[in-house]
Amino acid sequence: MAGKTIVILVAGEYEDLEVWYPRLRLEEAGYDVKLCVAEGPLDVKGKHGYPCRADSLLSAIAPASVEGVIAPGGWAPDKLRRDPAVLAFVRAVHERGKLVASICHGPWIPISAGILRGRRVTSSLGIKDDLVNAGAIWVDEPAVVDGNLVTARVPKDLPAFARAMLQVLAGPG
Amino acid sequence: MAGKTIVILVAGEYEDLEVWYPRLRLEEAGYDVKLCVAEGPLDVKGKHGYPCRADSLLSAIAPASVEGVIAPGGWAPDKLRRDPAVLAFVRAVHERGKLVASICHGPWIPISAGILRGRRVTSSLGIKDDLVNAGAIWVDEPAVVDGNLVTARVPKDLPAFARAMLQVLAGPG
Repeated sequence: MAGKTIVILVAGEYEDLEVWYPRLRLEEAGYDVKLCVAEGPLDVKGKHGYPCRADSLLSAIAPASVEGVIAPGGWAPDKLRRDPAVLAFVRAVHERGKLVASICHGPWIPISAGILRGRRVTSSLGIKDDLVNAGAIWVDEPAVVDGNLVTARVPKDLPAFARAMLQVLAGPG
Repeated sequence: MAGKTIVILVAGEYEDLEVWYPRLRLEEAGYDVKLCVAEGPLDVKGKHGYPCRADSLLSAIAPASVEGVIAPGGWAPDKLRRDPAVLAFVRAVHERGKLVASICHGPWIPISAGILRGRRVTSSLGIKDDLVNAGAIWVDEPAVVDGNLVTARVPKDLPAFARAMLQVLAGPG
């Protein structure tokens, strides 16, 4: 896994555990995990106050160089989905068939990237209607895998979210 | 792993990720993880503000029924080490040869339980002297395994801490 890069999208008011559990868990599995902000400063705070210094601006990472991108929840995705460069990055990773994962309010980002029509997903109940209106098939399960897309509901589903992401990253078979 | 219980000791001002990463990670591995406070209320807050509702009072758990106990850092261990029932619990788990893990300032608890003489450990630099004075052999490594004892330094070492705990839990061979 060394040298296999996974991007996690961060911004202010990110959901603390939804950034840090995937970050530490994928590091534990041997991936090179990059926390990326769309614009400066690199220092952002979680919704509950956990500090985070991003590793990089997203613009410094080529979407063709990554194995996947993760959109955690909290209020950060409300900011990130407004940035066309973020959406272009997610679309580029998706078009290569690589992992696009989101949890809680994170699926706002793939909604705005326009990649969810006809796909099976879950999320925070708060944005279920947004997913249905985007043409997705919403189900109430801890974590959902549909091809390269992984979604999960809330922080307590992080163990299932991690298992699902690792399964997709390992590839078929 | 279902039905195999691991206790994580919590109190106010716990280090947020040092509680939640082990909790979610061991759940992901199939363990039954119980966050335990020594006394009420069950609701405590992390040093950075992450909320936590403990699953149980420690007094409700028999030390003979668990596969291990974890002492995370932050300022919580400064409180927990004052409680003779906490120290008796840790000693009882240790005497059965089961996992006793601690990270950052968490090793204050096994220090006060009196179980570290001659054992190889690491910790936050802040309490290195306390470990040396307790007769332990302090080394600067991300995570250290000495028999049933696992220690680690700081939050960024959580991936190594988890790998080490899972190795000890899996047993020899």
